Amino acid sequence: MKISIAQLNYHIGNFEKNKGLIIKAIDKARSEGSDLVVFSELCVPGYPPLDLLDRIDFIEKCNRTVNEITDHCKGIAAVIGTPVYNKEPGGRKLYNSALVLSDGMTIFSANKSLLPTYDVFDEYRYFEPGKEFRLLSLKGINIALTICEDLWDDQPHGNWPGSAGIYPVAPMEELAVFNPDLVINISASPFSYQAVETRRNIFVAKALKHRIPVISVNQTGANTGLIFDGASLAVNRNGQIFRQLGYFEEAVETFSLEDLDAGFNFPDIGRAETAALIHKALITGIQDYFAKTGFRKAILGLSGGLDSAVCLCLAAEALGPDNVLALLMPSRYSPGSSVNDSVVLAEKLGIKYQLISIEEPMRAFEKTLKGPFKGLKPDVTEENIQARIRAILLMAYSNKFGYMLLNTSNKSETAVGYSTLYGDMAGGLSVIGDVYKSDVYKLASYINRNGETIPEAIIRKPPSAELKPGQLDTDSLPPYDILDPILYRYIELQKPPDEIVAEGWDRGIVEKVIRMINVSEYKRFQAPPVLRISSKSFGDGWKMPLAARY
Amino acid sequence: MKISIAQLNYHIGNFEKNKGLIIKAIDKARSEGSDLVVFSELCVPGYPPLDLLDRIDFIEKCNRTVNEITDHCKGIAAVIGTPVYNKEPGGRKLYNSALVLSDGMTIFSANKSLLPTYDVFDEYRYFEPGKEFRLLSLKGINIALTICEDLWDDQPHGNWPGSAGIYPVAPMEELAVFNPDLVINISASPFSYQAVETRRNIFVAKALKHRIPVISVNQTGANTGLIFDGASLAVNRNGQIFRQLGYFEEAVETFSLEDLDAGFNFPDIGRAETAALIHKALITGIQDYFAKTGFRKAILGLSGGLDSAVCLCLAAEALGPDNVLALLMPSRYSPGSSVNDSVVLAEKLGIKYQLISIEEPMRAFEKTLKGPFKGLKPDVTEENIQARIRAILLMAYSNKFGYMLLNTSNKSETAVGYSTLYGDMAGGLSVIGDVYKSDVYKLASYINRNGETIPEAIIRKPPSAELKPGQLDTDSLPPYDILDPILYRYIELQKPPDEIVAEGWDRGIVEKVIRMINVSEYKRFQAPPVLRISSKSFGDGWKMPLAARY
Repeated sequence: MKISIAQLNYHIGNFEKNKGLIIKAIDKARSEGSDLVVFSELCVPGYPPLDLLDRIDFIEKCNRTVNEITDHCKGIAAVIGTPVYNKEPGGRKLYNSALVLSDGMTIFSANKSLLPTYDVFDEYRYFEPGKEFRLLSLKGINIALTICEDLWDDQPHGNWPGSAGIYPVAPMEELAVFNPDLVINISASPFSYQAVETRRNIFVAKALKHRIPVISVNQTGANTGLIFDGASLAVNRNGQIFRQLGYFEEAVETFSLEDLDAGFNFPDIGRAETAALIHKALITGIQDYFAKTGFRKAILGLSGGLDSAVCLCLAAEALGPDNVLALLMPSRYSPGSSVNDSVVLAEKLGIKYQLISIEEPMRAFEKTLKGPFKGLKPDVTEENIQARIRAILLMAYSNKFGYMLLNTSNKSETAVGYSTLYGDMAGGLSVIGDVYKSDVYKLASYINRNGETIPEAIIRKPPSAELKPGQLDTDSLPPYDILDPILYRYIELQKPPDEIVAEGWDRGIVEKVIRMINVSEYKRFQAPPVLRISSKSFGDGWKMPLAARY
Repeated sequence: MKISIAQLNYHIGNFEKNKGLIIKAIDKARSEGSDLVVFSELCVPGYPPLDLLDRIDFIEKCNRTVNEITDHCKGIAAVIGTPVYNKEPGGRKLYNSALVLSDGMTIFSANKSLLPTYDVFDEYRYFEPGKEFRLLSLKGINIALTICEDLWDDQPHGNWPGSAGIYPVAPMEELAVFNPDLVINISASPFSYQAVETRRNIFVAKALKHRIPVISVNQTGANTGLIFDGASLAVNRNGQIFRQLGYFEEAVETFSLEDLDAGFNFPDIGRAETAALIHKALITGIQDYFAKTGFRKAILGLSGGLDSAVCLCLAAEALGPDNVLALLMPSRYSPGSSVNDSVVLAEKLGIKYQLISIEEPMRAFEKTLKGPFKGLKPDVTEENIQARIRAILLMAYSNKFGYMLLNTSNKSETAVGYSTLYGDMAGGLSVIGDVYKSDVYKLASYINRNGETIPEAIIRKPPSAELKPGQLDTDSLPPYDILDPILYRYIELQKPPDEIVAEGWDRGIVEKVIRMINVSEYKRFQAPPVLRISSKSFGDGWKMPLAARY
C-alpha cells in the first residue's frame, strides 16, 4: 500500500484555492501510484476558521467543496478535514471531522474527540466531541484515523503540578483495542519553538507504545498570527523516523507502507536550530499575512535600533527588498549615528528609504498645546507625541500608497507596556511581538550568520527609545538579562511570583515587572496581531481581564 | 425558612473588596433573620476572571478568601461561587462551583455542568464539567442548587434552524428526579437587551415545569465590556414573579420561603423600556470601568455630531459633569454650527470644554508630506490625518492630566469600518460601539425625555465625518435605515446573505455591506473594549479570522 502526505498551505474561506490545492495533490499522488493521500485537519475551510463556523452558509460552502473533491477522488482514496453536521438532536451542530473519500463517495468518517480549548485554541466553541471509535479498513489495512489531540491525549495541563493531563479520555486507547495496523493523525498544529520536539516525541512515543507505524500530517503556512510548521512525519513501529517533511514548506510525498515498516534507510533528521526555525517561521508569517490579505508592500519605521533592523531584514527576505520601504524619522534627541546606521542597513539590503523630519509636526503640537499645558513640565506626554507623529506619517504612506505598516515592538516591551499606544504600537502585523529582546539578539546573529548584514553598531548600542535626551531602556526597565527571564517565568511558565523569587530573582524587581505586565493589559488589547513563535504569545492565547486588580 | 438574595458588584481579582462585600451582606442577612444568603456565580474572584484562572496563586487566593468567609458564616448559611480544584487525576483542574458554607464549614458543593463556550463565554477553557447531581438539604428543605446554564439547558444553538439546543444533557432533569422543594440558581449573566425577557421566561418556565419555586441570583455592575444587570428573581411554583431586584443595582433582600410559596401580593413588574435599560447599562459600564481601573476623569472629542453628544451625556451622568472634559477640534471643513451646537450641549450639561484648532498640525503634516506626496491628489489619507491629529491631542490630555479617552464610534460605523484606526477609533473604552446608529437616535430621545438636553440641531443634522468639504455619511454608506437592518441580520442573527436578500433587501447593497464588514476586521482587532448591550457585540464575542477570504 502506498500512502501520500499532502502538507499544504490553505487560505481560510478561500474554497476555490483550497480545492485547487487539494485536487492538484490528489492528482500528483495518483500519478505516483498512491492508494491513499492524506490532508490535514480542516483543510477544506482552512484552519482556524473561528466564528465563520457559526455561519450556515460557510458550512454549506464546505459541503459543496467536499462534494467537488469527492467527485475527483477516483482511483485513489483521500483523507480530508472538514466540519460535518452533527445530526443528533442535542449538542453542538458540528463535528471536526476526517472524511475518507474513495471512488466518488465518503466511505468513512472520524470525529475529533479531544477538542483543544486553551491558549489559542477554542474548539469547544464550535464542535461537539466525537464519541465513537472505530477503525478504517482500506485494502486490508486497519487504520486508526485520529485528529490532532485525539492522539495527544496526555496533553499536560499548562503548568499545573501533579496533573495527569487535561483530557479524561484517551481515544487512541479506545482504538488500540481493535488492533490497528497503522495510525494516521491529521492536524493543524501551529509552530512554537517549544512544540517542535514535543510533537515529534509524542508520535514516536505512540508508535512505540502501540508497536505500529504513525503517520502525521500537518499543514504549513500562516494564518494571521498562527504559523504552521508542517514537519509532517512518518514513524515506524520501532519509533524511528522514516520521513519528515520540510518545515514551513508545501510538499506532497509518497512512500509505501512496506518501506515505512521495513525499518531501514532512515535519514538523520537532526535537531533544527531554534533561531533558524524562528527565523523561517517569521518569514512565513509575514509572507502569508501579506499574500492572504492581498498586500504586497510593507513599510516600517527604521529607528537605528535593533528591533526595527531585524524586522527590516525579515521583511526584505519575506517580500523582496523592492517591496519594502523604510522611513527614517529621527527625533531631536536621536544621535546622528542612528540615521547613519539605518542608512547602512537599508543600502546593504537594497531597500528604499526616506528620511523624514518630525520637527514640523512636533513644533505644531507644541504650539497647539502651549496654552493648555502652560506651566507644566514635559513628561511622557511629549515622548508619546513623537511616537504618534511617526505613526501618522507611516499610516499616511500606508493609506496613500498601499503599504502595510509592520509593527516592530518586541515581546519584552510589549509585556511591560514600554511602548506608545497609537504610536510605536501601530501596525497591521507585529513581526517580533512574540520575541523577547534577548532573543532578538539571537535572531540578529542568525541573520548575520554569513557575514554582517545588520551593522555591529546597531547590535552593540544600548537599547533606547530616543524620546528624550540621553534616554536608555534601563532608565525605566531592569536590564534585559534580568527582565526577560522573569517575563518568561511569568508568561510562558505561569509561575507564581513567590516561586520566581524562590529561584533567586530579586523580589522587588519581580513584583515591579509583574505589576507592569498587569497594568499594561489595556495597551495589548489594542495591539496588532502578533506572529506566534512561543508556547504563550500575546493576543488570542492571552485573555486577561482589563478592569481587574491582581 | 428565610432566604436572602445578595446582588452585588464584584471586582475581578480584588479579593479584599469582594470579601468585604460578601461579609457585609452576610451580616445584613443574618440581622434580618435569614437562614440562607445566596451570592452569585464566581463571586469570590469576580466574573469573568479569564486566564487568571490558569494561575495557581490566583486559585490559592480564592481558597484563602473562601476560608475567611467561611469563618464568618455562623448562625446562617451562605451559597458562594468560586473555582474549586478538581481532585480527579484527569480532566481540567478546576470546577466552577457553588459552595454552601454553614457554621464555619463547607457543607455542600455543586459543580457547574453546562459550561457556556460561545459568544463572550469561554468556560470550557478553564473548567471541567460537573457530573454529579444531588440535592442540598437545609433545615428540611431540599434544594436543587444550580449554576447559571445548568438551569438553562434548552439554550438555543445560535441561529441554527432545527436545533434542539447546544447541550445534550439537562442537569435540572437529573435533579428533578430527587423531588426538590426549591431551585436556586446562581449566575453571572451579562446584560443584553434581548436577554432580559428571555432570562425571566426561563425561570418562569422552569418553575412551572417542576412546580417548585425558583430563586435566581445574578451579579450587578460591569467588568470591562460585560455589564451585569442583576434583576435577580424569586418565582413561585405557579410561575408568578414574587420579587425582582433592581436592574444594575446592588441589593440584599430577604423574604420567607412561605411567603414566596403562598402566592399572593405579587408586584406588577412590567416590562422595562429597552432604551431605559440600555441607557442604564451604558452608565453602569462607564462607571465601573473607571472605578475598577482607577480612573476618575474622562475626555472626549465633541464633534457636533450625535454620537459624541450622546457619549458626552452618558459620561456626564456616569462620572459627574466635573469629571468630564470635551475637546472641540473642528476641521477646516466643519461648519461653524458644529462648534456652536457643541458649546450649547456642553454648557447645558455643565461640562468644561476647550476649543482647539487642528490647523497647525494639519499644515505641518501637509508640509512634511508635500515632497513624498507630490503630484498626488488628496484622498482618504488626508482625512485620516485629521482624525489622527485629534487622537494625538486627546491622548496628550489623557497622558498629561490623567483623563481616560472615551471612544464615541457607533456600531454601524464600527461594523463597516467607516472610521480611522488610531484616529476616531482611539480610546480606552468604546461607549456606544454596540449601539447601531438608529439606536443612537433612540438613546438621544431617551436622554431628552424630560426636556431638550441634546440640541435638536445635533439630532437633525445629516451624519457627517466632516473630513472633506460637504461630506456626508451617505456618500460612502447606505442610509442608516437600510444599513442597520442589514447589519442586524448579518451580525446578531447571523443570517446568510441570500436569506437577507430573500427578505427584500437589495442584493447589491447586502453584498457591499457584508464585504465592508469582512474587510474591516483588521480595524476592529485593534479597537477599544466595547460596552456590550446586545446579543452579539464586537470584541471578545466576535472572533473572525483576519487573513481570510469570505
